[in-house]
Amino acid sequence: METQGKIYLVGAGPGDPELITRKAHRLLQEARLILHDDLVPAEILALAGSQAEIVNVGKRCGAKRITQAEINALMIDAARRCVDVVRLKSGDPAIFGRLGEELNSLEQAGVTYEIVPGITAGFAAAAALGMSLTDRRTASRLLIASAHHAIGDPNQPGTETIRPDWSGLQRGDTTLMIYMPGHGLAGLREELLAAGLPADTPAIIVSRATTPQQRHRETTLAEIAAGQPLEAPSVLLIGRALDRNRHAHSAAHQAANDIATLVEQAEAILAEK
Amino acid sequence: METQGKIYLVGAGPGDPELITRKAHRLLQEARLILHDDLVPAEILALAGSQAEIVNVGKRCGAKRITQAEINALMIDAARRCVDVVRLKSGDPAIFGRLGEELNSLEQAGVTYEIVPGITAGFAAAAALGMSLTDRRTASRLLIASAHHAIGDPNQPGTETIRPDWSGLQRGDTTLMIYMPGHGLAGLREELLAAGLPADTPAIIVSRATTPQQRHRETTLAEIAAGQPLEAPSVLLIGRALDRNRHAHSAAHQAANDIATLVEQAEAILAEK
Repeated sequence: METQGKIYLVGAGPGDPELITRKAHRLLQEARLILHDDLVPAEILALAGSQAEIVNVGKRCGAKRITQAEINALMIDAARRCVDVVRLKSGDPAIFGRLGEELNSLEQAGVTYEIVPGITAGFAAAAALGMSLTDRRTASRLLIASAHHAIGDPNQPGTETIRPDWSGLQRGDTTLMIYMPGHGLAGLREELLAAGLPADTPAIIVSRATTPQQRHRETTLAEIAAGQPLEAPSVLLIGRALDRNRHAHSAAHQAANDIATLVEQAEAILAEK
Repeated sequence: METQGKIYLVGAGPGDPELITRKAHRLLQEARLILHDDLVPAEILALAGSQAEIVNVGKRCGAKRITQAEINALMIDAARRCVDVVRLKSGDPAIFGRLGEELNSLEQAGVTYEIVPGITAGFAAAAALGMSLTDRRTASRLLIASAHHAIGDPNQPGTETIRPDWSGLQRGDTTLMIYMPGHGLAGLREELLAAGLPADTPAIIVSRATTPQQRHRETTLAEIAAGQPLEAPSVLLIGRALDRNRHAHSAAHQAANDIATLVEQAEAILAEK
């Protein structure tokens, strides 16, 4: 087996440079070549070592500067020249990032790779707004989906793009996390209402989570398509778990009854240490 | 408003100390009090500053050493004593971590908090095994669920625990990520088969992902309950996106045709820089 470089497919997280992992930070400092998506902010690229060559391989709004096949070839070429490469992908590499296709390509070429997970945008958005995504009182699961398509590769002739199947949501115990909701909100609302989700289900649209440009709109399923769209990239959260106020009464009751006793217990626990 | 400490509810990630965020690392270095779950490994706690008081508030296998109400009281008490607290939760705080209940408690007490997301175990497991969780060729979405219950709090009288609703999965374009699958695998298999998921759907069980004790078993839906259970904590992934080999033929065909041209293009792109 010939000596060659290694490809690190690294999650860049949601945008805040403090929300990349320690490992991503180390790999950026060590890399000689960094191939990054458009969405990775300059503050994260600034963490790279001075020896790093940094190439934007992003595709912005359909204007493809570099094709997916060319990205694959850049990685393979670098590995064959014995250069370690960081392929820096926004969020987590395994979510809506064509990771499978990049891995197939690397495996065909016999190139060694490693994946470094990152914080995906929806989790960062929930954290930034103080939301839990599951809650044993209301939501037992989380469905991450994209608004504008189900399976189907529009670049492959004979492949059909089909709409998502939203059955199973009528019970209301699923939190929805919808990526790339921008142009499909009215259609999505109709589909989710038709699937039996109540019109007053809490919904939040978060734009550019964890960056200085973060914006959000709190609304309901019925109103998700109202108003001006927020700037991309954005993520849409829908579900009863987002509305913790419905549980505030019981929490307040318990707090009023128990807080004095509990603080005493807490001090006792700390005193034991 | 009185001066007080702040509570940071911080994701500790899946186990590898390099997979915590830079922000989590900084907060651990600065904290005076760290309240951590059982699952957080010693290597991560070792990143704390020497001034930090470190308290294990974990519940192991039902032997509750400290109740949820006591954890809440510990946080509130520390904040009132003007101490910044890191509440360190394994994985991501918003997934299966009772975050909603802790936030309700802090809000009732008027305590300021901030949530720092972390890499959740299932994403780390997928990365460790080279798996994509969505793939536009096969899987358009990801459903994160727990094996052993739907909504329902067993500690609240009058609350019923109900089984999950798996309808909507028969199309096969959803990747499933099941947390805490340990004791419910046989029942889960029957439910998923009944929901229309093919018996040969690829499945992987990953135990203690990203730690030196990581183990995994590649199997199919039909066989998920076979063999000895892997050590907890584990996560179960199920879906066609896990089997990229089905796409290898077309990838190989394209690679054989195009690789020479693409490497030339790649070198031209690099030469332009």
